[in-house]
Amino acid sequence: MVARKLKIGLLGCGTVGGGLVELVGKNSSLIRQRAGVELSITKILVRDPLKDRPGVERALLTTHPEKVLDNGCDMVVELVGGIEPARTFIQHSLARGKHVVTANKALLALDGFSLMKAAELQKVRLGFEASVCGGIPIIRALRNGLVGNQIQRLTGILNGTCNYILTRMTEDRVEFDAALAEAQAKGFAEADPTLDIDGHDAAQKLKILAELAFHSRVAADAVQTEGIRHITADDIQVARELGYVIKHIATAEVADDSIALEVHPVLLPATDQLASVRDENNAVLVRGDAVGEMLFSGKGAGSLPSASAVLSDIVDIACHKGGFSASFGGAVRTAVPDHSARHYLRFPVSDPSAIGPITNILERNGVGIVRAAAVWAKNASAQNQVRVLTQACCRSAVENSLRDIAASGLEKGKGIALRVAE
Amino acid sequence: MVARKLKIGLLGCGTVGGGLVELVGKNSSLIRQRAGVELSITKILVRDPLKDRPGVERALLTTHPEKVLDNGCDMVVELVGGIEPARTFIQHSLARGKHVVTANKALLALDGFSLMKAAELQKVRLGFEASVCGGIPIIRALRNGLVGNQIQRLTGILNGTCNYILTRMTEDRVEFDAALAEAQAKGFAEADPTLDIDGHDAAQKLKILAELAFHSRVAADAVQTEGIRHITADDIQVARELGYVIKHIATAEVADDSIALEVHPVLLPATDQLASVRDENNAVLVRGDAVGEMLFSGKGAGSLPSASAVLSDIVDIACHKGGFSASFGGAVRTAVPDHSARHYLRFPVSDPSAIGPITNILERNGVGIVRAAAVWAKNASAQNQVRVLTQACCRSAVENSLRDIAASGLEKGKGIALRVAE
Repeated sequence: MVARKLKIGLLGCGTVGGGLVELVGKNSSLIRQRAGVELSITKILVRDPLKDRPGVERALLTTHPEKVLDNGCDMVVELVGGIEPARTFIQHSLARGKHVVTANKALLALDGFSLMKAAELQKVRLGFEASVCGGIPIIRALRNGLVGNQIQRLTGILNGTCNYILTRMTEDRVEFDAALAEAQAKGFAEADPTLDIDGHDAAQKLKILAELAFHSRVAADAVQTEGIRHITADDIQVARELGYVIKHIATAEVADDSIALEVHPVLLPATDQLASVRDENNAVLVRGDAVGEMLFSGKGAGSLPSASAVLSDIVDIACHKGGFSASFGGAVRTAVPDHSARHYLRFPVSDPSAIGPITNILERNGVGIVRAAAVWAKNASAQNQVRVLTQACCRSAVENSLRDIAASGLEKGKGIALRVAE
Repeated sequence: MVARKLKIGLLGCGTVGGGLVELVGKNSSLIRQRAGVELSITKILVRDPLKDRPGVERALLTTHPEKVLDNGCDMVVELVGGIEPARTFIQHSLARGKHVVTANKALLALDGFSLMKAAELQKVRLGFEASVCGGIPIIRALRNGLVGNQIQRLTGILNGTCNYILTRMTEDRVEFDAALAEAQAKGFAEADPTLDIDGHDAAQKLKILAELAFHSRVAADAVQTEGIRHITADDIQVARELGYVIKHIATAEVADDSIALEVHPVLLPATDQLASVRDENNAVLVRGDAVGEMLFSGKGAGSLPSASAVLSDIVDIACHKGGFSASFGGAVRTAVPDHSARHYLRFPVSDPSAIGPITNILERNGVGIVRAAAVWAKNASAQNQVRVLTQACCRSAVENSLRDIAASGLEKGKGIALRVAE
């Protein structure tokens, strides 16, 4: 199959833009094979063309937006961020009938509705999977996967910085300032963390998700927003004693004929699905009238996860523009898995003293033993057993042992062997 | 906007087919608004047209396949299940240039590769989101959302029956037979549960997911398959004592130049993301080179969740056939949320005996108290505090109380109020 060529004009080459250049380079043959499209980035707008950018061809760089916007590319990818000039770039491109892909959360929260309308009028597409929750395909799920559902409620952990700070405060029992400093040191918080820790970033994401989920325009100030600056290690400790975990939660919910939108710290039951989402991860729980509750979780930010989302929009637009092209490769070699792992073994036996010969057989086959127990049946309907937890060993060694033990006549029935995942 | 009409020929009106008819009826205006397409089911193949089917128009029913296949519909939805005549119906439709949507897992596991090739040749689409994990959009995630990723590993709980049985055995400490009987009574297991509990159903799903994830054909017998019949309540108890949960897990993993595929019961650490997936729910954990680990979980089967997946394929095909149509509604009313909920309150105070007047103010505002504590600072840098856990009350009552307490001069700094989620 001949791959179609697709020329991409890229605006911005920071964290996400750099990730996109890397990913297009690394996985281009995979994308050609899966989607029948050959991606090439033909021009890149940057502020400083002399800055060191490993892996980025210097000849592609320009400081003139019109060299990207008007160079005959098929699609414009906007990753400069902020409101202006990003909005003008996108409007300019849509007006010229070009598809646009963007990761610009702030702009979409402010003006997404009118940009989507502009794309619709021009019959081109505006992709923005990367604007919310990085690599998690939640926009696609709301736009396509759950299209037949009335969405009733949407709850999520939408800000990785807040979740990282609260996780550290919970697990390491440190105060907010120490956790924030650690988040900054690890690159999970900006030098100025205000947008994240005061909840505005999560509120922007919630607005974008709510407009898609409820298919309605949401006013810019509609989200009741509260951050996490005021949470102390003590609060978290008190919550723990009551069986709760404190999480920074965004919620959009249908109530009568209106939608209630909130971003705030909440005490969640420790058993809640969102309570176990740790560190910088994001998660979204969607309740639809047909599917019930559905959870999506993963990395919500970062160079490659966000670039992966941008790329999914690019390929999606490329494929649906030119018809049907997904092609399959040939047959693959499959292997009988033979990981090394601990195993849990159980043998029904007449006499539990069989533990001696059974452990001998295991050790002869190279299966080390962590612990072994001879268990007498508690009542007439139960069986005497030998139970063994092995050291890490190959499945084949376990199976050879099972065969030898079966042949030995020590068993009264068939033994079982379960892998232990670490 | 004028909605395009799309005529659907439906083969089969059992659990999923009935759910589809219900969902198309219930959410048709939502689909018209979101996707600009007006769906109508024009003919339905059934075995027994006299059977009672509430909500299904009897005039649409027929026992002659050709009346569905050759009646001028735009798309054929195959929900009869099994290998034949389902395969012939699908091949017939593809050959005539019709898009096909199917939920037929057994057929796709056996012959999906050649059906996809046939669709590709005819430049039509074959949708099968409903074939794996019901309403969870995992097929779409692998085909589109993660298209730019090399998938390294795919692990999941793919069979709801096994997961329900193991959950009951774990939580209620009952034996396999009792848990199976309960699953059958609740409709989570078939009268003949062999395909589920011996792992063949999960193996078929794993094969379909692996072919998509690794973009390669997988041999029919490549999945090492083991069921859960032999697991006892004792095994689960022993695992629990070691810190593990027993789950029926499907795994596909790249190892050197081949793929290892397994379905088997595994001891998972109790903290593993899949360990907390309970009852009849399904989950898939995907590891991609760009996105890292990503979890999708939700209802894996059932009439409406599966119908939701079928519907997402129908709308997807409809939209990409006729161009761009996603239209947005108008502005929505948003409400200031005022749920009734318990709240956790904390007030910094000079003198902890302020607990008396503070609780008085709360009660005067209609905020009942579950418990209240006066807390003396442990050291000079800490503050004296009053902490309160309230009964369920409106946010407005809490905010009125906070205002009154601030006005009272009892506080030494700003108090906080966090919602408790139940």
